[in-house]
Amino acid sequence: MDIERLRRDTPGCAKVAHLNNAGAALPPIPVIEAVSEHFALESTIGGYEAAEQNDAAIRHFYDAVARLVGARADEIAYVENATRAWDMAFYSIPFADGDRILTTTSEYSSNAIAYQQMAAAKGARVDVVPDEAGGTLSLDALEAELAKGDVRLVSLNHVPTQNGLVNPAAEVGRLCREHGVLFLLDACQSVGQLAIDVNEIGCDMLSATGRKYLRGPRGTGFLYVRREILRTLVPPFLDLQAATWKAPDGFELRDDAQRFETWERYVAGQIGLGVAAAYAADLGMADIETRVTGLAARLREELAARPGVAVLDKGARPSGIVTFSVDGHDPAAVKDAARKHGVNINVTNPLSHGYDPDARPAAVRASVHYYNTEEELERLLAALPKE
Amino acid sequence: MDIERLRRDTPGCAKVAHLNNAGAALPPIPVIEAVSEHFALESTIGGYEAAEQNDAAIRHFYDAVARLVGARADEIAYVENATRAWDMAFYSIPFADGDRILTTTSEYSSNAIAYQQMAAAKGARVDVVPDEAGGTLSLDALEAELAKGDVRLVSLNHVPTQNGLVNPAAEVGRLCREHGVLFLLDACQSVGQLAIDVNEIGCDMLSATGRKYLRGPRGTGFLYVRREILRTLVPPFLDLQAATWKAPDGFELRDDAQRFETWERYVAGQIGLGVAAAYAADLGMADIETRVTGLAARLREELAARPGVAVLDKGARPSGIVTFSVDGHDPAAVKDAARKHGVNINVTNPLSHGYDPDARPAAVRASVHYYNTEEELERLLAALPKE
Repeated sequence: MDIERLRRDTPGCAKVAHLNNAGAALPPIPVIEAVSEHFALESTIGGYEAAEQNDAAIRHFYDAVARLVGARADEIAYVENATRAWDMAFYSIPFADGDRILTTTSEYSSNAIAYQQMAAAKGARVDVVPDEAGGTLSLDALEAELAKGDVRLVSLNHVPTQNGLVNPAAEVGRLCREHGVLFLLDACQSVGQLAIDVNEIGCDMLSATGRKYLRGPRGTGFLYVRREILRTLVPPFLDLQAATWKAPDGFELRDDAQRFETWERYVAGQIGLGVAAAYAADLGMADIETRVTGLAARLREELAARPGVAVLDKGARPSGIVTFSVDGHDPAAVKDAARKHGVNINVTNPLSHGYDPDARPAAVRASVHYYNTEEELERLLAALPKE
Repeated sequence: MDIERLRRDTPGCAKVAHLNNAGAALPPIPVIEAVSEHFALESTIGGYEAAEQNDAAIRHFYDAVARLVGARADEIAYVENATRAWDMAFYSIPFADGDRILTTTSEYSSNAIAYQQMAAAKGARVDVVPDEAGGTLSLDALEAELAKGDVRLVSLNHVPTQNGLVNPAAEVGRLCREHGVLFLLDACQSVGQLAIDVNEIGCDMLSATGRKYLRGPRGTGFLYVRREILRTLVPPFLDLQAATWKAPDGFELRDDAQRFETWERYVAGQIGLGVAAAYAADLGMADIETRVTGLAARLREELAARPGVAVLDKGARPSGIVTFSVDGHDPAAVKDAARKHGVNINVTNPLSHGYDPDARPAAVRASVHYYNTEEELERLLAALPKE
């Protein structure tokens, strides 16, 4: 990987040491140009006219995202963000009274709120599968819960935002297939960071965002739904993109994943997200994963060697997200100190991880991408408050 | 209104005679710059860091939209597009078996599909109120339907996309208040074209898009929900923007209209939409309405005087949308002919208006904005195929 070339291809690298990639990453020039050029075209010749002219670039999105995650183009929907992508999948599942949802301690509270809403509406029940000693989801405990029956859905995130681990998605997928249970994977933090193949993982649905490790624009995301199940799922919202009007008084749903879409959209963002997906796939997700996890491992090592700093990450397989505390300093103050030195980092929010007792109190979070350098890690270390 | 200045403020005016404003209008320079500059900032310093820096511009959106429609800022939600804004309102209504939904013949099929979905899920029933002789919704018929009882919702669009009329929203609002019935107004085509005051109209919910007459970016919209009812409505999707996690296993909804929002969004678009709303309000919606409807009236007159051309608009109060047919020429061919002469127009789709028998067959549609000129109308007339 030619890091210097990739940094030249990323205007933000000249301005800041960006270690907030789990928030939103810096886009590369091809993404910036694709978005800017389509927006300029819309402004000049009209929004619909620009979409007609750039039809191939709009359609390219489906092929590029499908290639990135090992899916078929007709299994991909463009959705406004990962939350809405996840919502469109989750709320399309016809839960019934007594149905169980299994999730993990690392679950994002936004999803947990949706579980609670569904529990209240339909009588479904949420069970949080305990972790094994190392802090990762216990596969034995998951298997025991599946064996108890009544499980309608296993739903978890691939890479939590707050504790540095990677959930064992493929092992979960294997268990779900054995038990004939739906598997929804929130891949918000993993797409663009880890090599992902939906068939190897065995998930039925996968939601993702554009702005994080994929380096796409804000306000973009996608949903993958396996072809075999997508016709069994009726999206909670329907419009003329998702369905066709049938006179006098009915409608017919599309038979591809675009049944989860809305007709109107941020078109420039869709084009940009397609470019971002192709950019990542062209670089090679295996190489990206090696680089990201390698830099994160190095950062953990250096942080751990520093007096007064505690690395808080857990789990057997570490991600590109590094969380830590600095004795005697509030995480927000550490973030501000880093910002003054031109280093972007972030702070975790315990309320975002309501099932995770280890998420309290807040931690400092540095999330690395392949375009970061060892020198930038040193800048962060130099910016940390002294004891 | 200084049309020449407004056209200089609209780069697209130099390129094309844009009479497709009911599709997506041409944005003015302040909108283009606001979107482009925030996107560039995101690309340079990071998405979250850019949002922190431009926090005032993001918050300005709520004030600007509230001012435009006579609402309070806490009654406004930023939503990805008008369809999703409408969905978030409609699907939050707790329909029960036997509840009736009243709508009009001019209803958009996308909304009609949602009615059908709700009917199938909850046993609600949709009744299409007939028109009076002139083609507008009959207020007498609406009142008679309301008097029959069981009406949970009156839901209609303000300006249909296909037949040139303006629905009598304020009169509908008065009837809904008298009968204590919820009123959802789809203002997709009217915001930015007509002077709108939600309190004068008396609607409880109003959905709108950014890209049409408001001249904002694609992929943006907003929802207004009256303060008195918003706490009674639980949005169909919830995330950490809409609600706060409460340990160990619950959540608390926001008490303002942002309960209908998603945390992640097209931030540059939100800033741009706020600028577009302020731009329209500063120009003055009454003057905009006079100019738009005046130009449309002139176009109808000139079209009607032309042999072989039939103006298809109906209703007592005409909008800026003009529909017509040209004898012996397919609407799509008329659109293509106009495009060759540098004129953007569009074609209506009968399937988009399933309740409207007059929407068949397709028609040619020219939709004017205040920045259009009489000369541009002449260009369209000159571009029409001869008999």
